[in-house]
Amino acid sequence: MKILVIGANGQIGKHLINLLQESTDHTGVAMVRKEEQAETFRQKGVETVLADLEGTVDEIAAAMKGIDGIVFSAGSGGKTGPDKTLLIDLDGAVKSIEAAEKAGVDRFIMVSAIQAHNRENWNDVIKPYFVAKHYADRMLEASNLNYTIVRPGGLVNEPGTGKVTVAENLERGFIPREDVAKVIYASLNEENTFKRGFDLIDGTTPVSEALKSL
Amino acid sequence: MKILVIGANGQIGKHLINLLQESTDHTGVAMVRKEEQAETFRQKGVETVLADLEGTVDEIAAAMKGIDGIVFSAGSGGKTGPDKTLLIDLDGAVKSIEAAEKAGVDRFIMVSAIQAHNRENWNDVIKPYFVAKHYADRMLEASNLNYTIVRPGGLVNEPGTGKVTVAENLERGFIPREDVAKVIYASLNEENTFKRGFDLIDGTTPVSEALKSL
Repeated sequence: MKILVIGANGQIGKHLINLLQESTDHTGVAMVRKEEQAETFRQKGVETVLADLEGTVDEIAAAMKGIDGIVFSAGSGGKTGPDKTLLIDLDGAVKSIEAAEKAGVDRFIMVSAIQAHNRENWNDVIKPYFVAKHYADRMLEASNLNYTIVRPGGLVNEPGTGKVTVAENLERGFIPREDVAKVIYASLNEENTFKRGFDLIDGTTPVSEALKSL
Repeated sequence: MKILVIGANGQIGKHLINLLQESTDHTGVAMVRKEEQAETFRQKGVETVLADLEGTVDEIAAAMKGIDGIVFSAGSGGKTGPDKTLLIDLDGAVKSIEAAEKAGVDRFIMVSAIQAHNRENWNDVIKPYFVAKHYADRMLEASNLNYTIVRPGGLVNEPGTGKVTVAENLERGFIPREDVAKVIYASLNEENTFKRGFDLIDGTTPVSEALKSL
């Protein structure tokens, strides 16, 4: 499958693009906002498209030509305010979902946040972020796409172990960004992850085995 | 009908409570967050319930006991940041929708904003606000409630004229808050407004006639 990574320049996005580049099953396409980001990917031999999540649905759909699956790993990040959280993490995500429907791309993997589906477990400090992720996820569930919602715990930069814990509901925990990318990659064709969401933290079970146990 | 006004202490809310108090068809119940706000309504003889939109769905549902219809006219207002826009205008609204479903209250009128359904017409300066209103409205449309979404133009404090313009789509314009309240009041039993949304600005057509023409 040809996989469009929305937010390829983010940390999880970069890990995922690397996995796709090594893959014999899939090809990665990096969607980024700025020409200089695109240039960096091109120099590594990665196919790249320029599109802005603050643009229109049609502009985003145009970036999905020839694409078989989409991973949304974009986020406005901790440095911008909640106004960008609304515009990128919520509206940008839903515009991507609508663009996928418009472009006829069926497979859509969303990078969400642990317990985003349960209001009572939202971290008070970043509650507005959870509101945005919650409604982006609900709009995806209400779409006609074949979705997977991956809800990782606290993201850390330690090297991945390839071993994780996944379940409908997990207590708070941490997970290397590299392992989040591995779980996304392994989910692409794993039917057990279709039309569902799951929490994800570090663990002792190899990724593919963990996904089959869901 | 017994009508719960969520955001009764807001400017539109106060006008609506006045109309309900004068009414022989309906009774108004003011939902407010603070005891001192509740006291002001009680002194006027208005039934009052205390509930916080940052609370749980169950807490909000408890405030809906014996209620036949709900008007959501709450908003975090221009003085707070977009973090409160996410928590009140989006999540608070959707929790109210879920609470209504839980409490078995079928009729739900949402005060939205002109063109909230069309991204291309969002005012750049307050775009995050439009994102919040847009998704609250979409969640309401996806609910099982008998909803009406009233999308007023720029709100002004001039006295109402009782005459308005309503349509699926209108150019930007202004509308006295008192007339928004009149439109909400007239919509309560107007079947022509059930399960639909409309833009609203000032005009020359009496409210009830305008709603019938939709």
